[in-house]
Amino acid sequence: MLNYSAPLTDLKFVLHDLLKVSERYPALGALAETTPDLMDSVLEEAAKFTSQVLAPLNQTGDAQGCRWDNGVVHTPDGFKEAFAQFSANGWAGLVGSTEHGGMGMPYALGCAVVEMMASSNMAWSMYPGLSHGAAECIHANGDDWQRSVFERAINEGRWTGTMCLTEPHCGSDLGLLKTKAEPHADGSYRISGTKIFISAGEHDLAENIVHLVLARLPDAPAGTKGISMFIVPKFNVDAKGVITERNQMGCGSIEHKMGIKASSTCLMNFDGATGWLIGPLNRGLNCMFVMMNTARLEVGIQAQAQIEASFQNALPYARERLQMRALSGPKRPDKPADPIIVHPDVRRMLLTQKAISEAGRAQCMYSAHLVDELRHGGSEAERKYADELLSFFTPITKGFLTEMALECTANGMQVLGGHGYIREWGLEQLLRDARITTIYEGTTQIQALDLLGRKIVQAQGVGFRHFLAMIAEFLQENADNAAAKEFIEPLARLAQEWPALTIKLGKAAMENPDEIGAAAVDYLMYSGYAVHAWWWARMAVLALQSPKSPFHQAKIHTARFYFERLLPRTDAHAKAMQAGAASLLDMPEELFLIA
Amino acid sequence: MLNYSAPLTDLKFVLHDLLKVSERYPALGALAETTPDLMDSVLEEAAKFTSQVLAPLNQTGDAQGCRWDNGVVHTPDGFKEAFAQFSANGWAGLVGSTEHGGMGMPYALGCAVVEMMASSNMAWSMYPGLSHGAAECIHANGDDWQRSVFERAINEGRWTGTMCLTEPHCGSDLGLLKTKAEPHADGSYRISGTKIFISAGEHDLAENIVHLVLARLPDAPAGTKGISMFIVPKFNVDAKGVITERNQMGCGSIEHKMGIKASSTCLMNFDGATGWLIGPLNRGLNCMFVMMNTARLEVGIQAQAQIEASFQNALPYARERLQMRALSGPKRPDKPADPIIVHPDVRRMLLTQKAISEAGRAQCMYSAHLVDELRHGGSEAERKYADELLSFFTPITKGFLTEMALECTANGMQVLGGHGYIREWGLEQLLRDARITTIYEGTTQIQALDLLGRKIVQAQGVGFRHFLAMIAEFLQENADNAAAKEFIEPLARLAQEWPALTIKLGKAAMENPDEIGAAAVDYLMYSGYAVHAWWWARMAVLALQSPKSPFHQAKIHTARFYFERLLPRTDAHAKAMQAGAASLLDMPEELFLIA
Repeated sequence: MLNYSAPLTDLKFVLHDLLKVSERYPALGALAETTPDLMDSVLEEAAKFTSQVLAPLNQTGDAQGCRWDNGVVHTPDGFKEAFAQFSANGWAGLVGSTEHGGMGMPYALGCAVVEMMASSNMAWSMYPGLSHGAAECIHANGDDWQRSVFERAINEGRWTGTMCLTEPHCGSDLGLLKTKAEPHADGSYRISGTKIFISAGEHDLAENIVHLVLARLPDAPAGTKGISMFIVPKFNVDAKGVITERNQMGCGSIEHKMGIKASSTCLMNFDGATGWLIGPLNRGLNCMFVMMNTARLEVGIQAQAQIEASFQNALPYARERLQMRALSGPKRPDKPADPIIVHPDVRRMLLTQKAISEAGRAQCMYSAHLVDELRHGGSEAERKYADELLSFFTPITKGFLTEMALECTANGMQVLGGHGYIREWGLEQLLRDARITTIYEGTTQIQALDLLGRKIVQAQGVGFRHFLAMIAEFLQENADNAAAKEFIEPLARLAQEWPALTIKLGKAAMENPDEIGAAAVDYLMYSGYAVHAWWWARMAVLALQSPKSPFHQAKIHTARFYFERLLPRTDAHAKAMQAGAASLLDMPEELFLIA
Repeated sequence: MLNYSAPLTDLKFVLHDLLKVSERYPALGALAETTPDLMDSVLEEAAKFTSQVLAPLNQTGDAQGCRWDNGVVHTPDGFKEAFAQFSANGWAGLVGSTEHGGMGMPYALGCAVVEMMASSNMAWSMYPGLSHGAAECIHANGDDWQRSVFERAINEGRWTGTMCLTEPHCGSDLGLLKTKAEPHADGSYRISGTKIFISAGEHDLAENIVHLVLARLPDAPAGTKGISMFIVPKFNVDAKGVITERNQMGCGSIEHKMGIKASSTCLMNFDGATGWLIGPLNRGLNCMFVMMNTARLEVGIQAQAQIEASFQNALPYARERLQMRALSGPKRPDKPADPIIVHPDVRRMLLTQKAISEAGRAQCMYSAHLVDELRHGGSEAERKYADELLSFFTPITKGFLTEMALECTANGMQVLGGHGYIREWGLEQLLRDARITTIYEGTTQIQALDLLGRKIVQAQGVGFRHFLAMIAEFLQENADNAAAKEFIEPLARLAQEWPALTIKLGKAAMENPDEIGAAAVDYLMYSGYAVHAWWWARMAVLALQSPKSPFHQAKIHTARFYFERLLPRTDAHAKAMQAGAASLLDMPEELFLIA
C-alpha cells in the first residue's frame, strides 16, 4: 500500500529557483545545451516511470526477495521487465558520456532521477545505481577498448556493473585485502579470491555483469599501496566486445538481510577468473576513490529518498485517521474524533521528515551540481573550488542524511501507530531499507573520520572555508532583510560557533589524535544540522518573495519549525564533541563486561 | 548466532546493593519471608531457563514466525515445549497470588525474570507476559469464581490470557469502541465485535485462552464511561472451571509484522460469544487502568532488555574484529590490525548501550519495587506515596527506554558494520523486535501527554515532588563527597533546571492547552535523561566504595561517560520544549503537501 508521487514541484524549485543550475550550463561546455525545459521533460518522464513502474514493485520485491539457486540469482517478479523498460527508454545512459552510448545530461539531473528511483523502489534502484558507478569508473580509468566495450554496454543498459571491494576479513580496512591477480601471457590476469557483500553481483536482469575487482599482484607492496583494479566480466568478451565463454567465477550464496531484500547481495568466488587491469598498477584504490564522492552522495540520496517516501505515506494517514480530540477543543465536531494531524507531536514528526527531506534534497542536488562543475568547469581554479567544496560536503551529506533517515523513517511508522508495524502498510520496509545506508559506502564512523580527520585537520578545512565564505556573503546580502531575521540571526550565530568549535577540536587533535575519533560523529551531526540551517535560511528568503503561494508558505513554516525545533540539537552535539576522549578511552578494555 | 548470558551480577547489584529491596520486605506483609538467598536462587534458575531454553529459539522463531491455518495458529518449533517447561517449573505463577495458584514472590523479582525472558526471546515472552497481566487484572477485579477458575489456571500455566482493547477504528482513543455486550438470561453476556492487534489471541501453547474484552452494553453511555470488561474464554467452562464447548469466537487472521514475528498478533471475531462481566458495569477502563502501570513498565523492560541483548552481542564482535589501527598508533602490533574496540566511536556506541541498559534496569526494578510497596505497604500513606511516585515514573520509564531502544539497537548493528545488516547475526532482529515498544501499550506520544498533561499539570506534579525530595536528600548526603563531585554537581544543576522548566511549561499550558502537546515528547525525553542521571550518580557513589572491583570500576567509567556524553542532550530538549506550539500548529493543515 505504499504510494509514491514524485515531488516534481520541489525538485524544480531546487534545481531552477534555488540552485539555478542551468544558468551555469553555458559555462560548463558539454552541458551548454541543457535547457530548463529539457530538464523538466526528463523529470516528468522519470516521475511516470518511477511512480507507475517501480513503485508497484517495491513491496512485492521486498516480500519475495531474491532467490539463489545453484549459482543463479532470480530477482523478484517484474524486476526484469522494469529493467528492460528502463534500458529501452535510455535511462541507463542518462548522464553517461555521449562518446560511449550515454546521453551526457547533467549529473544534477541524474541525481534527481536517482532520488525518484530510490523513493519508489530502493532495492531495484541498486542495479542501475551500481552499474552507473562502474561505468563512471571505467570512463575515468579505462583504456579505449574498455570504454568502448564495457562502458558502452552499461550506458546502453545491456550489461550491469559492480564494485568488488569487501572480503570476509576486510570492510573498512581495505589494506588487508587478499584477493590475488596473477599475470597471464596474453596481458590479462587470473583473479582468485572471495568477495562478500557484492551488490548486484549476480542477477537475471542483463546478459552480462562487469565486475570491478580490487586485487593484489603476487609481488605487490603490502597495504593499500599494493592494490590494483581489474575488470572481470561474468562472461568473457572478445576484442570486439562480443560475449564468448563463462568466466571462472560465480556467486556462492546471497545474504538474507534486514531490508533491500530485492537487491542481491552476493558472495562472489573468483577461481582464476580472467581479468583486465584498469588504471595503473597498484593504484586501484585511487581509481576507486575517483568515484567515492558520487557513490557516497548517492547513498545520501537513498536516505533522503526514504525519508521522502515515509513522509508521503504517513501524511495521508495523519489526515484521515480520526482519534481523540485536539487538546484545545474539537476541530471536527462533525466527526467522532479529530484527524490526528491536529496533535502537535504528530505534526512534529511529519515536519521533521519534511524539513530533513527538503533541505537534504537541496544539499544533494547542490552536491551533484558540484560534480558537474568538477567535470565540466572551464578553468582549473573553478574545478579545484568545486572539488574542495564537494569533498567537504560529501561525508556530511552521506553521514548526516543516513543517520537522520533512521529517525525519520521511524517517525513515519510512529504516525501510523500499530499499523506502522504491519508489513502491509509498508512504512516499516522504509526503515528496514534505509537502515543499510549508515553502513555501506563507509559507515557513519568512517564518514566522520573523513570529515574531521581528513577534510578539516589534514586539508586544513579548505572546503569548509569556501562554505563559510558563501554563508558570510548570504548573511551580508540579507543583513537588512527584516522579514528573514528569524532565520538570518541564528545562522549568523552558527557561522561564529561552528568554526570556533572546529578550531578547538583541531587544537585538541594536535595534542592527541584520538580526540578526532572521540569528537568526529558529534561534529558530523553538528555540521549536518548547520548545513540544513543554511538551506532552510536560503529557501525561506526565497519563499518570502512569493508569500501567496501555498508551496512557498509551507517552506516558510517548515523553515521556522527547523530553526525552533531541530537546530537546538547542535547544543547537545557541541557539548558532547568537546567532552574529550577520556570518557571513551580511559575505561580499560577488560572492563567492558557482560555483567 | 545471538547469544545471551543473564546479567546476574548487575541484577543482584541493583536489587540488593542499590535498592536493598529485601530490607523493606519485613514491612511488606506478604513478602516478609523473601530472603536475598531465595531471590538469588530464583534469578539463577531463570538465568538457566532463559539462556538455555529461550535464547536458542529466538532467531528460529523469528525466521519461522507464526502460521495461521483456518483459524488455528501454530507457533514456531520449540515454543510449545518451552512453554510446557515454563509451566511445569512454576514460572507462570511466580508473582501470582498464593491463594490462587501463585507463589507470591515480589514483583521486583518477577520483573528481573521478565527482563531475562525479554532479552533472550522477546516474542516468546509475550505469551506469559500478557497472561500475567490478565491474571493480575482478574485478581484485582474478579469475583471468587473468576479468580478460582481463570486466575488460578493462568497462575498454574495451564491457560493463557489476553487483553482485547483495540478495534479497527480505535487504538489510542478507546472511547470510540463499538464491540457489543448483550445481557443473557443466565447472567452472562453475548459479545459481538472485531478486535485487532490482539497479542497471543490464538496459539497452540495452552489448552484455553482467557480473553479480557472491553465492550459496551446496548444502553451504555457514549464514550469511555460506557465501557465494561468481560471474561471471554476460548472454550467455555462450567461452574467448576471444567472446559465445555468452544465459544462463539475465533481468530480471523494474524498480522505480518516487522518484528516479534513469533508472537501471534490476532484479529479476533466475537460472534455472540459468551462472556462474563468482570468488575462493575461501565467501569471497564478503570479495571484496565489498574494494570496500566505494570503493563507499561513491562514494555519499558522489553526495551531495556533489547538494549542489553544488543550490547551483549555487539561487544564480542568489537573485541574480535580486527580493522584499522587506533588513531594514536597500533595497540596490537602483533596483529594485522587493531580490534575495533580501540576506536573511540565504537566505544561511544557500546557505552551508550551500557549506560542506558544499566540505569534503565535500576529504574525498572525500582518501579517494580514500588508496585510491591503499593500492593503490600502497611499504611495507606505508604501505599499512596508509592502510587504517586510510580504514576510519575511510568510514562518516563516506558517512553524514554523504548525511544532509546531504537537508538541503542541501531548502535549494536552499526558496531557490526555490514554484518549488522545480515539476519544470521541477529542484531537486526533486536531492532525489529524493539521497534514495537514505542507503539504498543500507549505510544510515546500518549506517554508524553500522560506525563505532562496528567501527572504534572492535572496531578500538580505530586509524584515529581516526591522524586525531587529524594534527589535533594541524596545531594545533601553527598554534599561533602569530593570523590563524587563530578556526578553530584551536574545532578544538582538538573534538580534546579528540571522543576523550573516544568513550572514554565505548566504556566504556558494554562494559557493554551496545545502547549502541553507541543512540549510533551521533549519533556519526556528530558525527564528520562534526568532520571538516568539520578541512577548513574547513585550507582557511582556506591561504586566508589568498592574501587578495586572491576564491576564497580566499570560503573564509575560508565557514569562518567553518561554525564559527559549523553546528559548534554537535555540542552536540546530544554530548548525544543520551550519553543512553543506555534511552530507546530501555525501551519494550516492544507499546506502539508506532497510537493
